Amino acid sequence: MEENTVELSLNQATTRPYPLIATAEAAMQAGIRHIGLWIEPVQEIGIARTRRLLADTGLSVSSVCRAGFLAGKEGAELKEAMDSVRRALDLSHEVGSPMLTLIAGGFPEHDRSIRNAEDRLRARIEELEPHARETGVRLALEPLHPLFVQSRSVVTRIAQAHRVIKDFPAETVGILVDAYATAWDPTFDDDVLAAGPRIAGYQVSDFALPLPIPDNMNGRLFPGDGSLDLGSLTASVRRAGFIGPVEVEIFNEDIWELPLQTIVDRTVDSFARHLTQPLNALERQPV
Amino acid sequence: MEENTVELSLNQATTRPYPLIATAEAAMQAGIRHIGLWIEPVQEIGIARTRRLLADTGLSVSSVCRAGFLAGKEGAELKEAMDSVRRALDLSHEVGSPMLTLIAGGFPEHDRSIRNAEDRLRARIEELEPHARETGVRLALEPLHPLFVQSRSVVTRIAQAHRVIKDFPAETVGILVDAYATAWDPTFDDDVLAAGPRIAGYQVSDFALPLPIPDNMNGRLFPGDGSLDLGSLTASVRRAGFIGPVEVEIFNEDIWELPLQTIVDRTVDSFARHLTQPLNALERQPV
Repeated sequence: MEENTVELSLNQATTRPYPLIATAEAAMQAGIRHIGLWIEPVQEIGIARTRRLLADTGLSVSSVCRAGFLAGKEGAELKEAMDSVRRALDLSHEVGSPMLTLIAGGFPEHDRSIRNAEDRLRARIEELEPHARETGVRLALEPLHPLFVQSRSVVTRIAQAHRVIKDFPAETVGILVDAYATAWDPTFDDDVLAAGPRIAGYQVSDFALPLPIPDNMNGRLFPGDGSLDLGSLTASVRRAGFIGPVEVEIFNEDIWELPLQTIVDRTVDSFARHLTQPLNALERQPV
Repeated sequence: MEENTVELSLNQATTRPYPLIATAEAAMQAGIRHIGLWIEPVQEIGIARTRRLLADTGLSVSSVCRAGFLAGKEGAELKEAMDSVRRALDLSHEVGSPMLTLIAGGFPEHDRSIRNAEDRLRARIEELEPHARETGVRLALEPLHPLFVQSRSVVTRIAQAHRVIKDFPAETVGILVDAYATAWDPTFDDDVLAAGPRIAGYQVSDFALPLPIPDNMNGRLFPGDGSLDLGSLTASVRRAGFIGPVEVEIFNEDIWELPLQTIVDRTVDSFARHLTQPLNALERQPV
């Protein structure tokens, strides 16, 4: 069925060194219909120019990345982070994004309790939720890989993200599922099913060891180049009810050295071979 | 209370480049009373010499590391791995170890389902359990860091290890909790409490990014040199009922280049400052 076809969205991180305009045009020419924007490149060319670009290329915005880092902050630093999320919600609204990726933040030196950090995060999301409602942009809390629990995100599991946000309205606060960050989770399938309509977005890339230095973040690969079973993971997310565009979001210094056209072509090709085709096969089977 | 004092065990991985005899003698001289042995260095000097060494130094064996890697294997490869676990149980018995560390193994290329891998692992532990009972050595399933889910261990959470082994007798099959591998888990405290008498052993080291290449395994640090709150984590494990010796198990190329005496001294010193002292303070408070 046409309406159930899995659609690719190109997250701008994948083509990070290239200007937004060039990326959007290359995406359009490759037949891509959706884009995940990052805040800084949008600010660089401005909202008006971004909106014209989206209109000209026919690209719809699947997400804006990213704001947050709230759980470990206090005082003036926290106030600035909260204001920054509000501005990011405004920007997301202005470029027509349905959601803003929210990163939890790590914990402060003096309190390394994950539960306490979850409580602070919940209280801060509660303060932000009215602004999400006003702008019509969903806050999408993204569990990161456990590797980054201290430095970037106390939220590392889908079930945990769900527990943190469950008392907020589903239409204003959701979860962004990233396959690279959560595929290791022994209850991935159950957890996405339980999250169901809370799933606001879904990102993929592939995993292999060793992670590179100096930044262990930048070991992500094109679908199919690592060990993840992206067909099965994506089928679970779709069975849970998420049928929006699937973002390919890759952080990788070697890939960033490739020509823009090569990155876009390899994104399209690897997505077709390791997501669209396996999904067509899986979704033709009875569950 | 004297009987509740947290006791240090030196896991041999921490002094990996040095012969077992030198390590045991340095440990004794530093006042250490327990040691975690590795299979290969024991085999190098033989069981009889190891037993004499343990008698001469007064060291008790807290664990033998490690065997397993069962979940992804089949056929002849699996048979060899199973036999290898049985031999390791015999060796553990002969050196007086209460437990053998069991590593789950990753998954094979053709089936990347974690649930299927758990089922295979459970079936294989069931076959091994009678031998554990005969030797009086407990199989201790160790969750590894999610980073190694594909390559080394499909078991990454304490709750998951518990689910895999819960139908086996507690006296023959337990869990080895490693703080480095599981501190990120948002339900660490609840999960160790639920595991309770299943906790067969407990290991510590400290965490920092970036992990080194080429082997991301070898980024472990002395207690206090990273971001883990080892005092709190250890207090939770002790509240769950585990009051055995706490192994310091460090994999780190830089530390392995230090003189043996320096490694042992820094182990003793960091353990006192970041485990014994915080625990004394924590355990004097009402829970």
